Amino acid sequence: MMSFQEALDKVNQEVTLIKYPESPECLYAPIRYILSHKGKKVRPVLTLLACDLYAGNVESALSTALSWEIFHNFTLMHDDVMDNADVRRNQPTVHKVWNENTAVLSGDAMLIMAYQYIAKSPEKNLKELIDLFSSTAMEICEGQQYDMEFETRLDVTEDEYLDMIRLKTAVLLGASLKSGAIIGGASEKDAQELYHFGVNIGLAFQIKDDFLDVYGDPKVFGKNIGGDILCNKKTYLLVKALELSKGNDKKELLDWISSKQFNEQEKIKAITYIYNKIGIREIAEEKMSYFFQKALDSLSQIDADASKKEVLLGFADQLMRREY
Amino acid sequence: MMSFQEALDKVNQEVTLIKYPESPECLYAPIRYILSHKGKKVRPVLTLLACDLYAGNVESALSTALSWEIFHNFTLMHDDVMDNADVRRNQPTVHKVWNENTAVLSGDAMLIMAYQYIAKSPEKNLKELIDLFSSTAMEICEGQQYDMEFETRLDVTEDEYLDMIRLKTAVLLGASLKSGAIIGGASEKDAQELYHFGVNIGLAFQIKDDFLDVYGDPKVFGKNIGGDILCNKKTYLLVKALELSKGNDKKELLDWISSKQFNEQEKIKAITYIYNKIGIREIAEEKMSYFFQKALDSLSQIDADASKKEVLLGFADQLMRREY
Repeated sequence: MMSFQEALDKVNQEVTLIKYPESPECLYAPIRYILSHKGKKVRPVLTLLACDLYAGNVESALSTALSWEIFHNFTLMHDDVMDNADVRRNQPTVHKVWNENTAVLSGDAMLIMAYQYIAKSPEKNLKELIDLFSSTAMEICEGQQYDMEFETRLDVTEDEYLDMIRLKTAVLLGASLKSGAIIGGASEKDAQELYHFGVNIGLAFQIKDDFLDVYGDPKVFGKNIGGDILCNKKTYLLVKALELSKGNDKKELLDWISSKQFNEQEKIKAITYIYNKIGIREIAEEKMSYFFQKALDSLSQIDADASKKEVLLGFADQLMRREY
Repeated sequence: MMSFQEALDKVNQEVTLIKYPESPECLYAPIRYILSHKGKKVRPVLTLLACDLYAGNVESALSTALSWEIFHNFTLMHDDVMDNADVRRNQPTVHKVWNENTAVLSGDAMLIMAYQYIAKSPEKNLKELIDLFSSTAMEICEGQQYDMEFETRLDVTEDEYLDMIRLKTAVLLGASLKSGAIIGGASEKDAQELYHFGVNIGLAFQIKDDFLDVYGDPKVFGKNIGGDILCNKKTYLLVKALELSKGNDKKELLDWISSKQFNEQEKIKAITYIYNKIGIREIAEEKMSYFFQKALDSLSQIDADASKKEVLLGFADQLMRREY
């Protein structure tokens, strides 16, 4: 049985083995740069753990696992250009170290590289895995598009929001798990349940992310508290607050959102106050529990060794408990 | 036997059959937009013609053919962002109609879409075709990177220049042909000869492009004569002129390149004068003939019906004669 740490070590080892052509230096250096940062490597680890549920060893799932990590980092590189973000994992973003053209082009190369890794998957699963990879990748583009469109909207519904984070974040966890299950030889039903497990964990994970921006412990949380509030990011909390607030609360919320000049701490305090007043904290916690429970239901349907399922359960639990 | 026009009709028909999801509209509309423009569709046509050399029908090569066209348009969409180009095929570019973020994200979606089409290739060729697709796509990124790097260099050698256009332009023609040959059932040797045929035609084609910018007939040439000269683009002509010019000619050339303010027609006239004086026109024509001849040599090695080879020959001939 493979532990989370063992899977992570394997993934980290594999990342160091990636061969980069020497030139053109400016095409490959940014790829090496972004992949060398310490990330949680959740997606490739999930692929290996899912494979381990069914197969004796996970070697045959390694390149598939890597392809998700490379793909994920490709989306970060391009998203950071689109969002004009300066920092990622405490490091300057690629378009800050180099420039935007480099981030666009190296990102393109990374997407191709991700396909090169998925193409090294076991040949008998190749067609199924490539199709899973492409449809997932396309959904993630759709999610990013919706996310950008939401920036200028005040009428985003809860369902629209949940669909956006499903596309942008959750399906990638589902697909990472499913690909490992396919390579491991899982039944179609099990592969699909693992997909659902991943998607629901992903939904809970993203709401937790939104939650920590407001209710995280500043000493533990990696970013500054209130970053989403300051840029009016349409988080689960803000979407629900816009839906549920009334009268003066609603007016105040909209005033803060439209205000161009303000004291940052004042804005964070005021909006948090409204959230607390209308019970957004509890609503968000309830929603996280709801998706977490759905994930557990899927996991319980799976026909695999209980102790191996325990590893995935532990992972899900850890994600829910995380404070950063 | 399939004529060039029949192949083109088939490709155009297939492009109209592409299904786009309805939403998010802003993700898919730019893809529909760029693919709806009248282009020469050289790459997918080559795939079908290469398949036709060996197989009774080309239906099984259609999605592979489309994948090259979609990929090619993806590169245009992203290149236009990087080059900040306003117009493409007489239409405003995607980032001008929408914005840069849209062009980046829709481009990403197009690259994924291209992989979705190549994944529909006959399953027995799938692995080989995906690998060909990825390695070609990566080379094209490398070519674009070199092209951008050359912008700020005055010491680009002829070999460096030829390697850049091989990567950026020529390998795509080679790979389009090779993929059709593979699906048609060609021998490995023939598939490789067709690849070389395509690469050499591509090299001749790009030098012709550079050539027409200076020596094209303004009445026939689609763009304004001298566009490359005005922006100091490192074309074959300029690279050779920088290499071969001496004394006052070289000084004048460098002066024009570094000059920030100038009369456009004067600059075009002066640089063309230097080109003429040191025989750049003839050198470029010779180089085109050289690659054209190499292409013909490869074609002559191929074990296929002479009348079918005639179609490819006609295509190559037409590219060499084109005035726009």
